[in-house]
Amino acid sequence: MGMESWGRWGPEDERGALNHAGQEQVRRAAALIRSGRVLSLAQPLSKGTPVPRHRARLAHFMDRDGGDYAAGAKRPGGFQFSDDTVVMPLHFGTHIDALCHAWHDDQLYNGFSSDTIRSTTGAGRCGVDKLGAIVTRGVLLDIVAVVGSPLGLGVTISRAMLQAAMCASGVDVETGDVVLIRTGWFERMNGDPCYFDGEPGIDVDAARWLAERDVAVVGADNFAVEAIPFPTGAVFPVHQCLLRGFGVPLLEGLVLKPLADAGVAEFLFVAAPLPIQGGTGSPITPVAVL
Amino acid sequence: MGMESWGRWGPEDERGALNHAGQEQVRRAAALIRSGRVLSLAQPLSKGTPVPRHRARLAHFMDRDGGDYAAGAKRPGGFQFSDDTVVMPLHFGTHIDALCHAWHDDQLYNGFSSDTIRSTTGAGRCGVDKLGAIVTRGVLLDIVAVVGSPLGLGVTISRAMLQAAMCASGVDVETGDVVLIRTGWFERMNGDPCYFDGEPGIDVDAARWLAERDVAVVGADNFAVEAIPFPTGAVFPVHQCLLRGFGVPLLEGLVLKPLADAGVAEFLFVAAPLPIQGGTGSPITPVAVL
Amino acid sequence: MGMESWGRWGPEDERGALNHAGQEQVRRAAALIRSGRVLSLAQPLSKGTPVPRHRARLAHFMDRDGGDYAAGAKRPGGFQFSDDTVVMPLHFGTHIDALCHAWHDDQLYNGFSSDTIRSTTGAGRCGVDKLGAIVTRGVLLDIVAVVGSPLGLGVTISRAMLQAAMCASGVDVETGDVVLIRTGWFERMNGDPCYFDGEPGIDVDAARWLAERDVAVVGADNFAVEAIPFPTGAVFPVHQCLLRGFGVPLLEGLVLKPLADAGVAEFLFVAAPLPIQGGTGSPITPVAVL
Amino acid sequence: MGMESWGRWGPEDERGALNHAGQEQVRRAAALIRSGRVLSLAQPLSKGTPVPRHRARLAHFMDRDGGDYAAGAKRPGGFQFSDDTVVMPLHFGTHIDALCHAWHDDQLYNGFSSDTIRSTTGAGRCGVDKLGAIVTRGVLLDIVAVVGSPLGLGVTISRAMLQAAMCASGVDVETGDVVLIRTGWFERMNGDPCYFDGEPGIDVDAARWLAERDVAVVGADNFAVEAIPFPTGAVFPVHQCLLRGFGVPLLEGLVLKPLADAGVAEFLFVAAPLPIQGGTGSPITPVAVL
Repeated sequence: MGMESWGRWGPEDERGALNHAGQEQVRRAAALIRSGRVLSLAQPLSKGTPVPRHRARLAHFMDRDGGDYAAGAKRPGGFQFSDDTVVMPLHFGTHIDALCHAWHDDQLYNGFSSDTIRSTTGAGRCGVDKLGAIVTRGVLLDIVAVVGSPLGLGVTISRAMLQAAMCASGVDVETGDVVLIRTGWFERMNGDPCYFDGEPGIDVDAARWLAERDVAVVGADNFAVEAIPFPTGAVFPVHQCLLRGFGVPLLEGLVLKPLADAGVAEFLFVAAPLPIQGGTGSPITPVAVL
Repeated sequence: MGMESWGRWGPEDERGALNHAGQEQVRRAAALIRSGRVLSLAQPLSKGTPVPRHRARLAHFMDRDGGDYAAGAKRPGGFQFSDDTVVMPLHFGTHIDALCHAWHDDQLYNGFSSDTIRSTTGAGRCGVDKLGAIVTRGVLLDIVAVVGSPLGLGVTISRAMLQAAMCASGVDVETGDVVLIRTGWFERMNGDPCYFDGEPGIDVDAARWLAERDVAVVGADNFAVEAIPFPTGAVFPVHQCLLRGFGVPLLEGLVLKPLADAGVAEFLFVAAPLPIQGGTGSPITPVAVL
Repeated sequence: MGMESWGRWGPEDERGALNHAGQEQVRRAAALIRSGRVLSLAQPLSKGTPVPRHRARLAHFMDRDGGDYAAGAKRPGGFQFSDDTVVMPLHFGTHIDALCHAWHDDQLYNGFSSDTIRSTTGAGRCGVDKLGAIVTRGVLLDIVAVVGSPLGLGVTISRAMLQAAMCASGVDVETGDVVLIRTGWFERMNGDPCYFDGEPGIDVDAARWLAERDVAVVGADNFAVEAIPFPTGAVFPVHQCLLRGFGVPLLEGLVLKPLADAGVAEFLFVAAPLPIQGGTGSPITPVAVL
Repeated sequence: MGMESWGRWGPEDERGALNHAGQEQVRRAAALIRSGRVLSLAQPLSKGTPVPRHRARLAHFMDRDGGDYAAGAKRPGGFQFSDDTVVMPLHFGTHIDALCHAWHDDQLYNGFSSDTIRSTTGAGRCGVDKLGAIVTRGVLLDIVAVVGSPLGLGVTISRAMLQAAMCASGVDVETGDVVLIRTGWFERMNGDPCYFDGEPGIDVDAARWLAERDVAVVGADNFAVEAIPFPTGAVFPVHQCLLRGFGVPLLEGLVLKPLADAGVAEFLFVAAPLPIQGGTGSPITPVAVL
């Protein structure tokens, strides 16, 4: 258990289920575009962006700003500019989890040793730099619409609920899709740190159902895709199943209400992580083109 | 001079020429997709990523890694994970310049006061969070192909050279396009810090020609789009012309050789900045879909 | 008002009241040593160190650690090492406020323009690098002992209370002394963030009394020396009085209970800021030698 | 070999040779004070502070500055302030190496496992927070004076040279002393990065001679105390001998010329690391009181 897709794309593969999203999927997804409307699915990033209690906040520093000129800084040839720097956890705001982000028994996806992830070098295997850009069909599974309201903390989304949402959408989840699951968590959270004490999300069975349909990526509008608290005895079992077992990257912290409001169940989905060498994830701005 | 597009999209506009790339442009660009091949145009990001002498390098820190488990860290329920943090200038690697990045006479694009850019709040006006995602046609102007080799440091790309490249490509630059200019700088640079002492790039006349064709964005495979050294008496005149005057964001540090090698002059271009509130730019992973 | 010591040590002076602590004060303070016992007055620094709500926490990153070797990192010639980096606000834990830290009417201590403090250069005037090391007599004014218990949030320490504590100590505050005021805030706080909503501390009259006795530095075991909430209409009036008016640096976040428990009212005091060019303060480890 | 002082102060000891500097040493050192002159032995810290090629530079960011007010920031009650943050390697500028900084065979000083040094927690054993403040006699061994000029890169300082410097100084190195070795490297370096390709410094035999005289700390005006290049087959052998074997902390990057110019061979030495929990070192401002 937990090594379902190992070897499927060869012993050196570090992209996992993104291999499902090939050129055919790109062409089919592009053909879905109707209005040309573009929606960003990313949260704004600032020092006020909500984070779980164990994560640090963003720090944003100005290296040069307008105030410096107001205070008399020189303007060679009239030129003025502003520059800045961030200190940013890579699992922050709307972000993608690389395949090296979670594992067990000292083995990552595809059997790589977790000893390849070190302080000096970062993730030698399965880092976010190995994922590449994601361009494929996006499918929204709107659990809020099925249930009639945002789900409460800890509520589990089962395989049957995903299927019901899929039925309601009229779209079949297929090979290479990015599946976006709307739980309602983000739109209810409103910056309240208590919302990080638990979350509605999928269970392992639902995760497995998605993975077995050969999806490329699973995303959600909560902070960890899966239901928290976990089932007894398990710790992040959906992370283990999807990242390590099936090689499915996760998108977390998505903003999905505007997409749901748009009433479009399938669309061109584009998201490109920052290619940080050895990074375990990346903040990301996913785009739905309707 | 220097306020050509001010007021064009209303007094509160902070997106500038991106307003040229509307839903029609999205639909037309999507229709260009042939093979479905996806190319990332971004440099890898690491502490070894080349930077100009005045900028800091990326720092990448592991908050948790595989080594910690090798050294005995606990694994509740078997769970192991890795996490990390970056310290990163926002004008780093492949990145976008927001409209607040350069100005003169204390006024930004559209007449906003540069006093709105401060240490505590970042850019109150024309920050990178105001740009939104970019989805439109990309057009490659391959100066290397026209000239026959990468350009030397300081070589100026004129309007005529852009026109020649456009003729060679068989594609007319039109409203809402993202124009990508290949100078050959990046592919020759190879990490040599001296390559930041100058660069081939466009002059103001060429910049103006692009802006007057209502392009949405101008990008290049060098570090500042424009030729350095500057003409006598000017400091970053293309930045002033495009960012401040016409409201045209700039993409810098692009990797364009693979795109040139692909032999496709027009394509779907997608790039989405991190929505850092008050940021003056953002590292970005632009994508060409062929 | 607010410029009491301006010009006292010349128009270029940036050390302020530290000029009171000269070589004579050093010799007299050294002569106070009896047992040779050394007490550090600094809080431990970690990501758990309490901070006011508007300040960021410390981040501590390992660049190399033992886990890396456990995971197989190379050991040239057998050599193993660990290295680390901090991201740290300079007003953090036990720290010193440089004379540039607070002001009004755009003028710092000694009349320097606050325009000299900019993003790119830091504090051009009155930075922490201008203070130099502090070696002089330390005097403990133990308000907790006078009152019989730690003071509540918002309680004001008056001139009379300082005088009472001085009487109780049997030591006269004299030219060049570092005066350490124990309010009991730190020992009651215990990491509770609510303790940063207010604090017991001195009022302006008490501050003025100290300054007029030509002390070199005023320190306390709270986070801002002065009582919070402020008197109506005033914002950090003690900071204004001492830093800007009299040029008296402030020591904040001191750990004073062990010193009080030692029962020694006067001692050799040594504290040396990190000479960060243009810094507005510095974490510091003050030492009392008894 | 390499465990000379293990167990000497009990199995839980993490202060090593600092145990030699007790209250008696404090009293004797204080009695050396003659003029009361205070010398800081620390380099200024800025982004221009020289570092070896493998280390990052200091970053100093203003969270609030005078420019913000010049640009119109609010002044509640007239109050203005400045605040800042640093990103700083702990082995930077003038700094102390904690006992966990170097080791071999997976064992630190006193036999602690290097598995106790991890990304999440820092150094669980022998961190800089365990050292405490250093107050004792300082002795300057001025090799530059003995040799007649600053030593060249790679020049080895032998036991005999230390003895000659000691003779010249007229002071015997004794139990609990902090020994400061002037090589002349810092005063010749002048920011030239090539000076980090090698350095004059002590060899293992000289280190052992110092350690066997029960010194508390060894410091030097170079970046690693010991001669570089190393003897064939060895990597940082003096670090191994002093930090791991004898538990002697190292002070690096000292500014010693002003001390040598003062012509005082023994003095009160005070240095107090920042008590960063799990830190492997700390920037420090050592003070000599003459």
